[in-house]
Amino acid sequence: MAHDIRIVTEAELRAAVGLDRETVAVIEQAFGALSDGWVVMPPVMSMELAEAHGEVDVKTAYIPGMSGFAIKVSPGFFDNPRLGLPSLNGLMILFSAKTGLVEAVFLDNGYLTDLRTAAAGAVAAQYLAPDLVHTAGVIGSGVQARLQARAAHLVRPFDRLLIWGRDADKARACADDLSDLECDVRVVDNPADLVRASQLVITTTPAKEPVVKAGWLHPELHITAMGSDQAGKNEIDPQALVQADLYVADRAPQARSLGELRAALEAGLWAEDNPVELGDVIRGRARGRRDADEITICDLTGTGAQDTAIATHVMTLLAGRDVGAVIRA
Amino acid sequence: MAHDIRIVTEAELRAAVGLDRETVAVIEQAFGALSDGWVVMPPVMSMELAEAHGEVDVKTAYIPGMSGFAIKVSPGFFDNPRLGLPSLNGLMILFSAKTGLVEAVFLDNGYLTDLRTAAAGAVAAQYLAPDLVHTAGVIGSGVQARLQARAAHLVRPFDRLLIWGRDADKARACADDLSDLECDVRVVDNPADLVRASQLVITTTPAKEPVVKAGWLHPELHITAMGSDQAGKNEIDPQALVQADLYVADRAPQARSLGELRAALEAGLWAEDNPVELGDVIRGRARGRRDADEITICDLTGTGAQDTAIATHVMTLLAGRDVGAVIRA
Repeated sequence: MAHDIRIVTEAELRAAVGLDRETVAVIEQAFGALSDGWVVMPPVMSMELAEAHGEVDVKTAYIPGMSGFAIKVSPGFFDNPRLGLPSLNGLMILFSAKTGLVEAVFLDNGYLTDLRTAAAGAVAAQYLAPDLVHTAGVIGSGVQARLQARAAHLVRPFDRLLIWGRDADKARACADDLSDLECDVRVVDNPADLVRASQLVITTTPAKEPVVKAGWLHPELHITAMGSDQAGKNEIDPQALVQADLYVADRAPQARSLGELRAALEAGLWAEDNPVELGDVIRGRARGRRDADEITICDLTGTGAQDTAIATHVMTLLAGRDVGAVIRA
Repeated sequence: MAHDIRIVTEAELRAAVGLDRETVAVIEQAFGALSDGWVVMPPVMSMELAEAHGEVDVKTAYIPGMSGFAIKVSPGFFDNPRLGLPSLNGLMILFSAKTGLVEAVFLDNGYLTDLRTAAAGAVAAQYLAPDLVHTAGVIGSGVQARLQARAAHLVRPFDRLLIWGRDADKARACADDLSDLECDVRVVDNPADLVRASQLVITTTPAKEPVVKAGWLHPELHITAMGSDQAGKNEIDPQALVQADLYVADRAPQARSLGELRAALEAGLWAEDNPVELGDVIRGRARGRRDADEITICDLTGTGAQDTAIATHVMTLLAGRDVGAVIRA
């Protein structure tokens, strides 16, 4: 019973979908659906390949009402740069939510993951950052540093962007790549200055020890921490989660085991009740920022719901267009 | 950093690999590796899509020494036959175990799963069935009934094959499809007669209530139950597991939650120690059949190690051959 399957490459996907308000709205809807309670989202499947210094994560979710569901595979092989290859790769497979048939294979090398992760940062900023953000700060200098800055600027068009990274050359390269953003972009010497000067901070590092200290928090600040997606990673001083007026997770069980919340729980700083989820704030089931002065933190671990939402969105964008190879299988 | 990815269809895979001694040996090695203890195999990821009467399973495993690892996605959508579509579908993706890059996408619609499942039946028969099998019996009349009969005949070239299925027409169609097998093939009226007359029985049903009763067991019998791969399925009377001289699981934790062992545990019939695994018998770490008279049962739930083994094997078979589409992504 052969049927047509569309195979789309990273280059074709980059041409078809980018980081814009539409993508952000798609991811906002995914979080909303998570809050509605009908999404089926199994725990992340994880496998370590210790010999190769590698790991693989598999994520998925079924969002009722969406025509498809994605299975997303994200390998991370950390010796790859020595071979001239990127550490992060992977693909998404889109299945019909009605028949389970494979509809498309998106050979995106992680591009769609980058996109839906950045879009989640925009959603977090939209619902939790102060209305007026003059200065935004990005900690880290990789792909997500670039994308999170652009995503944040979509929803909070700040005047000034500060960047800090452990490697000053990379931070400068990141600033150069963001020079087209309509604001003043500067590299700063230390993360403390960056946090103190910003109303919106996004941390995008794979840090295992906090890079943001609780002592740097100040009124009129929102922090989105998107780096931690595994037990062992930790970007924000656990004390900061308690000190903030509001801590919001993308998905509570994932935040408990993979996010910033894990370190706070391990330090005994967090009481056992579940945190508010981003979707609850979107749907008005939980409060968001109450006033400009508050300190808010959003912890993004990355959800299968985002993968299903972006993959289904891409398929809609490609409908009727001659993009990718069609294979009858 | 684009690289070549081979996309191979079901038809191309069927032409490239079949059920033969080589495939059986590949799966035997996978079970052996599981017993050696170095295989990394996360629990099966499962998602239900209740509205569509569907479910999806994701399996994977890393087998040190193999050049690749597979991620296998198996959707089962049980309203599909009404739409003229098969219930079971899916694909396998092969990744490099060194870099995590996608090497191949096997759009097999479940064919490779069928193959590695049948091959596991052959391995079970090879190590556990009496040396002399005059009569083999297959319960069920689907794809696996056909493949398991052929797989068993590879390692125990029986003279007579009995088939029983709930639907007599389907059982006859199954017998017809097996008429090329070098033995006498007959459809029987009831499963009790089938079990009593056979030295090797393979159950291949999605039964939720046992189809094989403990009272039918007799000396000189091996049963392989391959139907149960989910909590809720049960082909063999739980009492039979205790009554047999030896019960062997493909993978103990999976058998406890997804296999025949689950029902025996729930009935309080099985003590809490873990069963012997098929790989332990292969490697000589646990005893197999001691003599012709014993009663043995093997419980196959299906492992990610088999998926990685078959996918890697297929890639080896395709090396240097112009099979499938090559996409630079």
